[in-house]
Amino acid sequence: MPRYRLDIEYDGRAYAGWQRQADLATVQEAIETAILGFCGQTVTIRGAGRTDAGVHATGQVVHVDLDREWDADKVQGALNAHLTMAGEAVAVLAAARVADDFDARFSATARHYLYVILNRRAPAALMRGNVWHVPRLLDADAMHTAAQRLLGKHDFTTFRSVQCQSASPVKTLDRLDVSRDGDLIEVRASARSFLHNQVRSMVGSLKKVGEGGWSADDLEAALKAADRARCGQVAPPDGLYLTRVDY
Amino acid sequence: MPRYRLDIEYDGRAYAGWQRQADLATVQEAIETAILGFCGQTVTIRGAGRTDAGVHATGQVVHVDLDREWDADKVQGALNAHLTMAGEAVAVLAAARVADDFDARFSATARHYLYVILNRRAPAALMRGNVWHVPRLLDADAMHTAAQRLLGKHDFTTFRSVQCQSASPVKTLDRLDVSRDGDLIEVRASARSFLHNQVRSMVGSLKKVGEGGWSADDLEAALKAADRARCGQVAPPDGLYLTRVDY
Repeated sequence: MPRYRLDIEYDGRAYAGWQRQADLATVQEAIETAILGFCGQTVTIRGAGRTDAGVHATGQVVHVDLDREWDADKVQGALNAHLTMAGEAVAVLAAARVADDFDARFSATARHYLYVILNRRAPAALMRGNVWHVPRLLDADAMHTAAQRLLGKHDFTTFRSVQCQSASPVKTLDRLDVSRDGDLIEVRASARSFLHNQVRSMVGSLKKVGEGGWSADDLEAALKAADRARCGQVAPPDGLYLTRVDY
Repeated sequence: MPRYRLDIEYDGRAYAGWQRQADLATVQEAIETAILGFCGQTVTIRGAGRTDAGVHATGQVVHVDLDREWDADKVQGALNAHLTMAGEAVAVLAAARVADDFDARFSATARHYLYVILNRRAPAALMRGNVWHVPRLLDADAMHTAAQRLLGKHDFTTFRSVQCQSASPVKTLDRLDVSRDGDLIEVRASARSFLHNQVRSMVGSLKKVGEGGWSADDLEAALKAADRARCGQVAPPDGLYLTRVDY
């Protein structure tokens, strides 16, 4: 069966996360339903990242096996038509025929996330649900400097949800950049893979640095403790975007 | 009574426009209700721009007279607390005590609007309701060049809603810039004041230029005809933002 890669954008506000769940709207179900509408096939798609409820994507990647060959542009157009008709906040940015051994999840060599903090007194009106509103002024430079202490291969137990199903808490963090753009603070994180809630846990701890409650040494000590109780607040899903997956 | 200026952001998707209407949610009503909750006063506020249903703002300006002197920071914080509690997509970006003769509408010397087109095959997922999705590739440079023909003082009847209540169709357009940023085309329009639907009418006509249906000469001829029937499509409210008001 010919395999297709789909690049996906979605607004997580509308969904109880990526993964299909009984009685809850999920991104996976929205796409699988659009595929059923397009070609009559009941499929199970696989995504590169199983994002949580409320988490967004501008570059999620999935693969799906279709019964027959279709023009990739037609697949994209038809799926978008079905998604739009169904009122879904999901769009197919690109579709491509790929090799049978391409696996959206297991072939990925890097995942890139963006976390956006709205750092101003006034709450979000236009970006409600798409940013984390932090009213107290944060020092983005201090956050960036401290973030560099987390780079490399570590036991990230401190920044791991207790529900994490990963076999090992050891991951290699390749990038954790913090920068300010006006009222927005953007945190960019890259790794081959992340633990459950790792980005949100790191961002919540970086916020403690940004408001002056923690030094870079404190952040590093929390990492080295490998103790979930040492984590700062877990940042809400609102500000998190899966932006790109490399293969 | 001390007068206050409020700078306001809102997501127009949630509202039937700026101006108070019976039985419909409006931005004016949301703010007036927040003021009532804050200080128990029933007020009528005046805004710089009476935006239509679905139109957004990042820099709407209003004035309101309060019964007594309040610390401006307290006004901002309390109104935002009431707006958030009520679930409104409205935020007070700034509050300031102003002179008694400051009038948000009549003292304005310039209004600035941004119109955002999402120009890609895939529909908007994250920006649904906040952009105009135009799937066909537009030539932003051609749009910008043609737009310059509309600058200056003209009878803008072609680009005026038949419902427009302005005394005269003659306005002076100071800026109409079109630029591309990736998949987004941004149109920036500035004038002392605009006719009803003027920006959306100009953007819809510029789209005809962008897709090659109209030349710059065609656009200028449409302007000079001063005939509403010569206008291109009126762009939807989704992509329009009132971004700044000068005094």
